[in-house]
Amino acid sequence: MGIRTREEYIESLRKQKPNVYMEGEKIENIVDHPAFRAGIESAATTFQMCHDKQCSDLSRVVSPIIGEEISRWTHLMRDEQDAFAKIKLMKGMGESPCPCSYRCITADVLHAAWAASHDIDKATGSSYHQNVVEIVKQAQREDWIIGGGFISPKGDRSKGATEQADPDMYLHVVEKRQDGIVVRGAKSHSTAAPYTDMLCIMEIEFAEDYFVGFFTPVDAEGITFICKRGHAPAESKQLENPISSKYGGHVESMIVFDDVFVPWERVFMCGEYGPGIIFGVILGASHAWHKCMCRRNNMELSLGATGLIADYNGVAGAAHIVDNMCEMSMAVQIMDSLITYAAVEGWKHESGIFSPKLATVATGKVFSSKRVGEDRFIMQDAAGGLVATMASEKDYFNPEIGKYLEKYYKGKDDVSTEDRIRAFKLIEDMTASEFAGWYHAMCISGGGAVQTFKSIAASGCDLEQCKTKAKRIAGIE
Amino acid sequence: MGIRTREEYIESLRKQKPNVYMEGEKIENIVDHPAFRAGIESAATTFQMCHDKQCSDLSRVVSPIIGEEISRWTHLMRDEQDAFAKIKLMKGMGESPCPCSYRCITADVLHAAWAASHDIDKATGSSYHQNVVEIVKQAQREDWIIGGGFISPKGDRSKGATEQADPDMYLHVVEKRQDGIVVRGAKSHSTAAPYTDMLCIMEIEFAEDYFVGFFTPVDAEGITFICKRGHAPAESKQLENPISSKYGGHVESMIVFDDVFVPWERVFMCGEYGPGIIFGVILGASHAWHKCMCRRNNMELSLGATGLIADYNGVAGAAHIVDNMCEMSMAVQIMDSLITYAAVEGWKHESGIFSPKLATVATGKVFSSKRVGEDRFIMQDAAGGLVATMASEKDYFNPEIGKYLEKYYKGKDDVSTEDRIRAFKLIEDMTASEFAGWYHAMCISGGGAVQTFKSIAASGCDLEQCKTKAKRIAGIE
Amino acid sequence: MGIRTREEYIESLRKQKPNVYMEGEKIENIVDHPAFRAGIESAATTFQMCHDKQCSDLSRVVSPIIGEEISRWTHLMRDEQDAFAKIKLMKGMGESPCPCSYRCITADVLHAAWAASHDIDKATGSSYHQNVVEIVKQAQREDWIIGGGFISPKGDRSKGATEQADPDMYLHVVEKRQDGIVVRGAKSHSTAAPYTDMLCIMEIEFAEDYFVGFFTPVDAEGITFICKRGHAPAESKQLENPISSKYGGHVESMIVFDDVFVPWERVFMCGEYGPGIIFGVILGASHAWHKCMCRRNNMELSLGATGLIADYNGVAGAAHIVDNMCEMSMAVQIMDSLITYAAVEGWKHESGIFSPKLATVATGKVFSSKRVGEDRFIMQDAAGGLVATMASEKDYFNPEIGKYLEKYYKGKDDVSTEDRIRAFKLIEDMTASEFAGWYHAMCISGGGAVQTFKSIAASGCDLEQCKTKAKRIAGIE
Amino acid sequence: MGIRTREEYIESLRKQKPNVYMEGEKIENIVDHPAFRAGIESAATTFQMCHDKQCSDLSRVVSPIIGEEISRWTHLMRDEQDAFAKIKLMKGMGESPCPCSYRCITADVLHAAWAASHDIDKATGSSYHQNVVEIVKQAQREDWIIGGGFISPKGDRSKGATEQADPDMYLHVVEKRQDGIVVRGAKSHSTAAPYTDMLCIMEIEFAEDYFVGFFTPVDAEGITFICKRGHAPAESKQLENPISSKYGGHVESMIVFDDVFVPWERVFMCGEYGPGIIFGVILGASHAWHKCMCRRNNMELSLGATGLIADYNGVAGAAHIVDNMCEMSMAVQIMDSLITYAAVEGWKHESGIFSPKLATVATGKVFSSKRVGEDRFIMQDAAGGLVATMASEKDYFNPEIGKYLEKYYKGKDDVSTEDRIRAFKLIEDMTASEFAGWYHAMCISGGGAVQTFKSIAASGCDLEQCKTKAKRIAGIE
Repeated sequence: MGIRTREEYIESLRKQKPNVYMEGEKIENIVDHPAFRAGIESAATTFQMCHDKQCSDLSRVVSPIIGEEISRWTHLMRDEQDAFAKIKLMKGMGESPCPCSYRCITADVLHAAWAASHDIDKATGSSYHQNVVEIVKQAQREDWIIGGGFISPKGDRSKGATEQADPDMYLHVVEKRQDGIVVRGAKSHSTAAPYTDMLCIMEIEFAEDYFVGFFTPVDAEGITFICKRGHAPAESKQLENPISSKYGGHVESMIVFDDVFVPWERVFMCGEYGPGIIFGVILGASHAWHKCMCRRNNMELSLGATGLIADYNGVAGAAHIVDNMCEMSMAVQIMDSLITYAAVEGWKHESGIFSPKLATVATGKVFSSKRVGEDRFIMQDAAGGLVATMASEKDYFNPEIGKYLEKYYKGKDDVSTEDRIRAFKLIEDMTASEFAGWYHAMCISGGGAVQTFKSIAASGCDLEQCKTKAKRIAGIE
Repeated sequence: MGIRTREEYIESLRKQKPNVYMEGEKIENIVDHPAFRAGIESAATTFQMCHDKQCSDLSRVVSPIIGEEISRWTHLMRDEQDAFAKIKLMKGMGESPCPCSYRCITADVLHAAWAASHDIDKATGSSYHQNVVEIVKQAQREDWIIGGGFISPKGDRSKGATEQADPDMYLHVVEKRQDGIVVRGAKSHSTAAPYTDMLCIMEIEFAEDYFVGFFTPVDAEGITFICKRGHAPAESKQLENPISSKYGGHVESMIVFDDVFVPWERVFMCGEYGPGIIFGVILGASHAWHKCMCRRNNMELSLGATGLIADYNGVAGAAHIVDNMCEMSMAVQIMDSLITYAAVEGWKHESGIFSPKLATVATGKVFSSKRVGEDRFIMQDAAGGLVATMASEKDYFNPEIGKYLEKYYKGKDDVSTEDRIRAFKLIEDMTASEFAGWYHAMCISGGGAVQTFKSIAASGCDLEQCKTKAKRIAGIE
Repeated sequence: MGIRTREEYIESLRKQKPNVYMEGEKIENIVDHPAFRAGIESAATTFQMCHDKQCSDLSRVVSPIIGEEISRWTHLMRDEQDAFAKIKLMKGMGESPCPCSYRCITADVLHAAWAASHDIDKATGSSYHQNVVEIVKQAQREDWIIGGGFISPKGDRSKGATEQADPDMYLHVVEKRQDGIVVRGAKSHSTAAPYTDMLCIMEIEFAEDYFVGFFTPVDAEGITFICKRGHAPAESKQLENPISSKYGGHVESMIVFDDVFVPWERVFMCGEYGPGIIFGVILGASHAWHKCMCRRNNMELSLGATGLIADYNGVAGAAHIVDNMCEMSMAVQIMDSLITYAAVEGWKHESGIFSPKLATVATGKVFSSKRVGEDRFIMQDAAGGLVATMASEKDYFNPEIGKYLEKYYKGKDDVSTEDRIRAFKLIEDMTASEFAGWYHAMCISGGGAVQTFKSIAASGCDLEQCKTKAKRIAGIE
Repeated sequence: MGIRTREEYIESLRKQKPNVYMEGEKIENIVDHPAFRAGIESAATTFQMCHDKQCSDLSRVVSPIIGEEISRWTHLMRDEQDAFAKIKLMKGMGESPCPCSYRCITADVLHAAWAASHDIDKATGSSYHQNVVEIVKQAQREDWIIGGGFISPKGDRSKGATEQADPDMYLHVVEKRQDGIVVRGAKSHSTAAPYTDMLCIMEIEFAEDYFVGFFTPVDAEGITFICKRGHAPAESKQLENPISSKYGGHVESMIVFDDVFVPWERVFMCGEYGPGIIFGVILGASHAWHKCMCRRNNMELSLGATGLIADYNGVAGAAHIVDNMCEMSMAVQIMDSLITYAAVEGWKHESGIFSPKLATVATGKVFSSKRVGEDRFIMQDAAGGLVATMASEKDYFNPEIGKYLEKYYKGKDDVSTEDRIRAFKLIEDMTASEFAGWYHAMCISGGGAVQTFKSIAASGCDLEQCKTKAKRIAGIE
């Protein structure tokens, strides 16, 4: 099929018949449903980019696996150069207003499954890896976007997977057949899942039935998506919500697995929690690294929006605003440094794939999650109260009262009222909209809890070696 | 009339005919308009409280001005004891879910006008003060809620009021007649204005025509309200948006004054920018003090919500969560201390009214505005991703799929799924809803810019005296 | 004897013969020993103040216990007014360059012993309280400064008092005789102890032998002080170390108790760990409150020093310096507020003494300990590198090279070189001297660990009540 | 001469006769003077390392300029690989207890002079570059350590170099002769200067006489060093001050130039403030980069010391300590990332030398200067009060009282008392000694003010491009 266009991606969704509910209703056709519009449009971004002049080169690469030109989004990294190319591509994404194209997961799971199946085969004599090779080939040829289902509901968190009152609180294998496995349970927090080409589902608890990884079509029997609508405004806008009216946050799903059958050729681990643990390591590093790059782009946009509104308000020279913009700039550069250092200090897994340094990207995840609140404070502080009180575009376009807004929303002479309104509406969308609320939560909890990443980040320093150094200097033998 | 009930307040609004626009449409009847419901309900809170058993005592006081029992919300403070009574009342308000009853402004402007008219009369021989006395009497007898219009659009902020290309960028007096004045201009950021009993409008620039203060009915000729809808969800909810579906943020207005006539008896300053400057000082201190008390209540609720979700998730003992709750507790106590200290160090103006210490409440405003982002981070961190991904109540109540949610949203054994959902929906409403966006902006920019308050806060230390002390200790004579 | 003068205090020390070691040598006469000079001078500060014109009124009060005028430093607070008087007195202390007069402990232990002996007597029928009454009378009549010994070495902190390999790691009673008790163990971190009039020693573990409180003369048999020298420079200075050359940090001691006999009339608790627990509560609140007031004074001096050096360097208008001084001012006001609020919310113990609110002063302890590093950063940032590189006063007074320093250390025209040098030397003393190191450590660890106070501070909010409020608002019954 | 040993370096100093004053006395022989011991020992570190087995490889490189093996400390970087090699070497330095070998400046000035002389020659036809080539050859052959003099006293900072009342407040050329120039003025903050092989002096103001750069021997006629003693304790220690008793901070100097003659062959710029501006850029980037690496090493040691004392106190599992160590680890990794990113994004100057990215290292300078105070807080918090109150080693070794300390300073069973004492003395040296004060000041002000670096750091983001992006997304054309 080759590298798909935006349109080809969207059309392909029509062939799938996932069982989808939202706000109490069954949705037969998600492609044309208004609540899915912005999410699908967001997911289409990487497809469109591959055909844009500016990003086409960054987006294309010849796959060493299938020997054809593919989208870099399905490419498996083999070395630092691949990592640098991905960094460039992700920075290119930053030019798009889309805050989340959701294409990271595709790479995350392919790398992780590739490595984990290799290690398991080596340790147990199984033959999962070839399954993954075939999946990767198909994904590259058909230019897939893959959805992920990683986090089970977990019930009572003070108890483990096998100790829950309800055994389904963690997804698990209920039957192993000759032709495949049957799984039961649910996955929370699955972003964008119903409008992907394939799902990758995993459970990685230390218990045989609770350690499993597989791919499955979105419309396999027994799968139900219970969706939360994305945060695009219901109506289209001219000035308002410049981000969220087009790319207003993805549809989130809980995916319920009611005894779903998965044929063995789509399974890449099943019970091997010893060697398979690498899955989580590779997945976590890849995902946090992508997240760092997204956050970096958003932080740069926050800086730009602050600079813009400061100009329009005539306060660009105010010392506290200059100082705040310095802090924002330094934060972007710290993110850039972490992203690059993670690549420079990356490592090649025996299976051939390359992975960025986990502790470094975990540091980036923690650091950047703290910046969301701070950047919003800075943006709102530079903008002032109109972020929360400015009248709507309908008022502006109303013949009776629009003249008042044209007159009284005017700022500096050389900036049109409409432009000033647009700048405020951008900041409102980034800091005070429902979409902004979703985005903040995603930055804090998406991909795992901040505290978890903090512990992982700490592993980047060899504490024992540091203590040994301290001892030597203190004269302790 | 005496102390009004919630119903009397709402009914009284029907007698007013303000000229109101919202989202491009003229609204004839705001009382029954869905977009005004939550705002009017919020404004009704203090009226209801006066008749609640628990708060009735705190809410009532005999006015030394009219000698009758009145609502404490229209009472003028005369000493520290009044201030302590107000603190108690405001803490009582904290028991209500309503985040902003908007009754603070009533007290703010009555105190400020009382003092300013006194000082101006004394300096210039004018007779404004008696006007204010009459207004206060009426406000107390009729139990008013007063709206405020303080901030002009300001146009190009690098230029002053009289240097703007458009002279109307600051509100100003265009004509002085024997019976009154005519004013032109606009006021931004007027919260709740159309559903108040009276407006208090001021401009306090250092130029004769741009220094004016007056009261006016909301439906005076020439006044137009261009409104931004509050952030209540359109439909009523059972589990979701427990705050905003009832009290979802006020309607914000730009108030346009198109040559509005104000009779002299409602004017309390007009051109006397020397002695009249006290207006801003008293207003600012009163408003920031109220704001500190509101923020304190919200910070306490944030602490409670964090504790609740931590319990429900089974992570109440996690060290980072305990530590975060310590920080939240300390922040509440710092606010309590600032609020009380501002009263202890308050001062009695020659006109008889008592004012909390400005620098202290300015410190509280700055300190508490920074906590919004931090508290939200903590709440979301304790709650986890379901804040952003939990399905809607309609799904929960749907017979097909509700069973899945009942099963998979279950947490600890002793907490019902519904209660856990409610806790998440509370946190979502407080951190990731459109209402939360408005609230954040109001905390940062409401009542004036953070940087402005920072400068005011600095005045609380006598820098010259501190330097003198440093000199003496350094041995510099 | 009445209120002593500085000289009377110092002379009285000559009558005591404590067993003192420092840096490996036995010191027979501490009064004339150079390493004790600055410490004794610091301890003399409160005595001098009582006779200074400015502070005399603040410093004197008629004792309701002995009916005579006494120093307020030995007075027992009975109500909020006493607390306000103490706040005034402590602010007066802030005018002195002395960073620690060590007189707080006198009040801390007298209040705590007064309350604890009362509660124990009531619970057990013992008669300790009269002992304390007599001690208080003597302390007031003879104007004592009392030393404290509170913290045992503790050995392995993962084990309790009775589980240690060496039973002496916590101080304990080894014998109860008819005429008194015999104690063994050690007390770390005893500031100023050898130059006080009496020691108050306590252990408050939950084990009979490890719960004891008593007073003892410094030269009782079996007591040894192993001292760490204070941080005054060895030579006297003209320009340098304006604080530490006079008041350079106290002598710290480990006090060893090698079977020390204490007669019953100086014992106020011995084994009653149930009712006696109040001792720690009152002591902790009193001490942290005093500490808050000291830190507040130091924070104000830091602000003054920053303002001074900024003036002298010609950078007082630089935006980041202005902003930093705003932060410092707000921090001082937060401290002022906490100090006052602790008094307003203080409580009267059944025994008649008044105690500030513990959670509030714990908040102040935590908040102010964090400010030390921040204030030093600000001071150094405003001052620049000369803090660390400026030549010594001996160079300045040297005829050969002094002329170069006179020429090249000159700043603004209207500030003499010598004054500029003095300002730098003040900041060096406050931020980069050995004394500064001691002071920082004292701010962080003195009076207890920051983390301990954080937990105490959290108790200031009623978490269960906050959660109930959150539940009610969320609709959870 | 080749790569020198520690001894050869020290012996070579005996041949120089600089005019040195300290504390009012002229010092004829600095090599054997106790106040210079620790500084000279620190400067000797890099020489020693070149002959250590572990670091020898990292330390040696064949110079492409002279074709011989040289110390990497005098090597000019030509590409990213050289930069990576330097990073390794600097991390190797981190194994030494020496906090500052002062060898960075050697590289800083050689790179900067190399580039600046090239640009000036190209722009003006001058022939400075050959002078620098000869200096570099000599520096490499003779393995120089070079001192720097960069910062003039500046007098009144609100006035420029040419507006000062005293023209000598900035160093300037007072005469140009055929054989050389004569300069007058002074340089503050010259670390280690009297014990270097050569000085590099610069002034880079925008005025002909105030723009000059040259090399000069330390004992040239007319040069006087007015020195501040380093912060090593006067006596040698066994347990105490494990860092500062050996490497206790450098001697700082003001260098006075009283009409000093410099022959043309040692001048590399003189009046060409247009093209010569590159000198400051290269110097600043090189120095800040080195500083980042030093700070990173110190931050790692701080982490190790915290871990060590936490172990010894038995509190290594306490949640707040674990959390603090996470923060320290993340900070080290942010520094590592900035250091590496600065190399990856470095650039090659036309003259052939390679320079790390300025904005990135400026970010590192700002970030790491803030960590000093935070890391100290963490160390002291983990250690507790003994940091400030522990008795001296003389007490510990005293036969009378040493037994008490052996007994009472004992912690966990498996840690000897002596080791525990050593750990406390390390932390005292790092946080509460006079040396610690100097080090803190050097971190904040050394190499330039934090605020200056903040502005430079901000240049790392292209603000205009960010604003353009914000505009595009907001729909502003």
